[in-house]
Amino acid sequence: MLTLDKIYHASYVLKDVIRPTNIVKAPSITDDCDVYLKPENLQITGSFKVRGSGYKISQLSDEEKKRGVIACSAGNHAQGVALAATKYGIKSLICLPDGAPISKIEATKGYGADVCMVPGVYDDAYNEALRLRDEKNYTFIHPFDDENVIAGQGTIGIEILNEMPDVDAVVAAIGGGGLLSGVACAIKSLNPNIKVYGVQAEGAPSMYESVKKGEPVCLDSVSTIADGIQVKSPGEHTFKYIQKYVDDIVTVSDDEISSAILKLIETQKMIAEGAGAAPVAAVMFNKLPIKGKKVVCIVSGGNIDVTILSRVIKRGLLMTGRQQTVCIELQDKPGQLLAVSKIIAEKGGNVISIHHERASEGTDVNGCYLRIVMETRNYDHVKEIHDALMGAGFKLV
Amino acid sequence: MLTLDKIYHASYVLKDVIRPTNIVKAPSITDDCDVYLKPENLQITGSFKVRGSGYKISQLSDEEKKRGVIACSAGNHAQGVALAATKYGIKSLICLPDGAPISKIEATKGYGADVCMVPGVYDDAYNEALRLRDEKNYTFIHPFDDENVIAGQGTIGIEILNEMPDVDAVVAAIGGGGLLSGVACAIKSLNPNIKVYGVQAEGAPSMYESVKKGEPVCLDSVSTIADGIQVKSPGEHTFKYIQKYVDDIVTVSDDEISSAILKLIETQKMIAEGAGAAPVAAVMFNKLPIKGKKVVCIVSGGNIDVTILSRVIKRGLLMTGRQQTVCIELQDKPGQLLAVSKIIAEKGGNVISIHHERASEGTDVNGCYLRIVMETRNYDHVKEIHDALMGAGFKLV
Repeated sequence: MLTLDKIYHASYVLKDVIRPTNIVKAPSITDDCDVYLKPENLQITGSFKVRGSGYKISQLSDEEKKRGVIACSAGNHAQGVALAATKYGIKSLICLPDGAPISKIEATKGYGADVCMVPGVYDDAYNEALRLRDEKNYTFIHPFDDENVIAGQGTIGIEILNEMPDVDAVVAAIGGGGLLSGVACAIKSLNPNIKVYGVQAEGAPSMYESVKKGEPVCLDSVSTIADGIQVKSPGEHTFKYIQKYVDDIVTVSDDEISSAILKLIETQKMIAEGAGAAPVAAVMFNKLPIKGKKVVCIVSGGNIDVTILSRVIKRGLLMTGRQQTVCIELQDKPGQLLAVSKIIAEKGGNVISIHHERASEGTDVNGCYLRIVMETRNYDHVKEIHDALMGAGFKLV
Repeated sequence: MLTLDKIYHASYVLKDVIRPTNIVKAPSITDDCDVYLKPENLQITGSFKVRGSGYKISQLSDEEKKRGVIACSAGNHAQGVALAATKYGIKSLICLPDGAPISKIEATKGYGADVCMVPGVYDDAYNEALRLRDEKNYTFIHPFDDENVIAGQGTIGIEILNEMPDVDAVVAAIGGGGLLSGVACAIKSLNPNIKVYGVQAEGAPSMYESVKKGEPVCLDSVSTIADGIQVKSPGEHTFKYIQKYVDDIVTVSDDEISSAILKLIETQKMIAEGAGAAPVAAVMFNKLPIKGKKVVCIVSGGNIDVTILSRVIKRGLLMTGRQQTVCIELQDKPGQLLAVSKIIAEKGGNVISIHHERASEGTDVNGCYLRIVMETRNYDHVKEIHDALMGAGFKLV
């Protein structure tokens, strides 16, 4: 049974495990309300997950500890379990899908876990972890659907109210629902007037659909940039608590999440992963009734793979006119490339790549295409370059 | 005259202007010493510069204030002057080179300054600012070579010693030298046993060369990814103070700076600009005699343009085997692309772009090249894909 008592007990136990993450003001996110961030991306292991696994492991019996723990994770839970187990002197084995980013594998090993790479995706790793639990008698640490894990995550709710007793609303992402179950229970138990909102990715809305239907729903497939909340079905416990304590759930798109990641980089100098940026996206894109309110967004983690970060930034550059592709139809005669290069250089465009291609279908036999990717300052600058090219008689396609 | 008194006075005056930036531990930077960061990238305006301009402006006479202030900057100083002027109810005009990133222009306007875009580079903007000062009688705020500006930057030294009295060494970047002059004066005045080191970019080593030569040197050209410290010559005052107070100056390459930026992203979830990451680079790449010591790196700012950040990350991906280009020489017959695609897909490579090109020079008339850019997990993964392709009889070039 999840109680406020248990969450307070977790706060007490976790003091030696976690780092303090003080709330920071983030006025540039929106003008519509007072936004603050609870930066769990700066938590040890780079996410809040160490709270739940830390409390869970601390409460195991000596016999359970002696057997060693096993967990399955594509990332944050792995690091949380590894660190907490090492802290309490327990052996840990983590099953990871073999596509997991090398950085997360290395970090998990670095915190002292043994790692078992399982061919396939998360579900394969999960099944392998259950098989190993049965075969070798390990103690299994569920990533979210466990009341001690939930109580550990709930400590964030207590910290928010300690630091900012006059908060009007708290927003957090939902994957399996462990974080928000704990936080909502803590906050509503202490002050039912404070609103608690959940955010899911449009491509993985399992809790959103479940609450709407009134029973847990398992989605056939899920896909989102926010891999930390890419979960097919809510937990039994977490579904119950979220139904009971959470005021509303909204969804955000991958583009909205990407914009929020970029916004946090540019204005807060802070790296959030997709799941961590989702609450910020919900606030930026006006998904919630919080106009004029004091709102805390829980930035749940910062473990974004650099490959994905690179894609997010690239998308942001395209969306703000700072990188553009221009495709020009040329007559196939000498001097054309020179003329185009001259115009772009004069206008201050910075060429990244050029691709020159003859006589494709759709051009006449004497024509060719020139495709140029360049860095630009903004949309006005792009237009200036387009106008100059067209003014010189070039045809843009 | 720069004195400890003046720096303490600046600390007192700046209390209403600046944000506290508490030192954070950064154990993942290196195993060789205890690294801490003074995160001035989290300072208001995204850099330490607001300290110097804030104190300078606070100490202007009423008559100087009434005339309004003018400054020239490619970025951080602009935002610092704009914010400080607005805070003290003074009009400000900032000359920016017209190539300045749109984000910095918008931020400067956002802090309340009028902005004058000057065609050309920094030096052109500087000359225009001096011209406008003379023509319109504005009060000029120098970015570094001014004792009140230096005293403002020196407040960082006092804060470091307040928070960590047992620090062994402090490392900061040098552009014009304002930051390190102030910090070194504060620290050496309070405890001459603490080492103070400066870091410059290899492509802009003006203070390094000046100190070596014993007199200020003006470089013909400077070029570095760390635009915040891309300065051709040190100030008169700053040269004198750095000669007097700083133990040593070292240089770091753009690749080393890029690695440090990536390291801060991946392990600290923190965005630093090139200048801000330079001290971290000096520590990571063993440029300083600090083995086993307690070292504070001043991360001076976080205002990196997203275009540059994107390039830094891309370079990091290449350097760690997470993005690779493979070029294959094919016989020009049907089914070849299919065969290659199948191998890459089976091995888990994620294709980003493909370029297929017939009969270039150097291939026989029937041959063609296939150039594939793909996301990979690491160098082992790259090798696995290479081996599979070669095993199937393809020739990599």
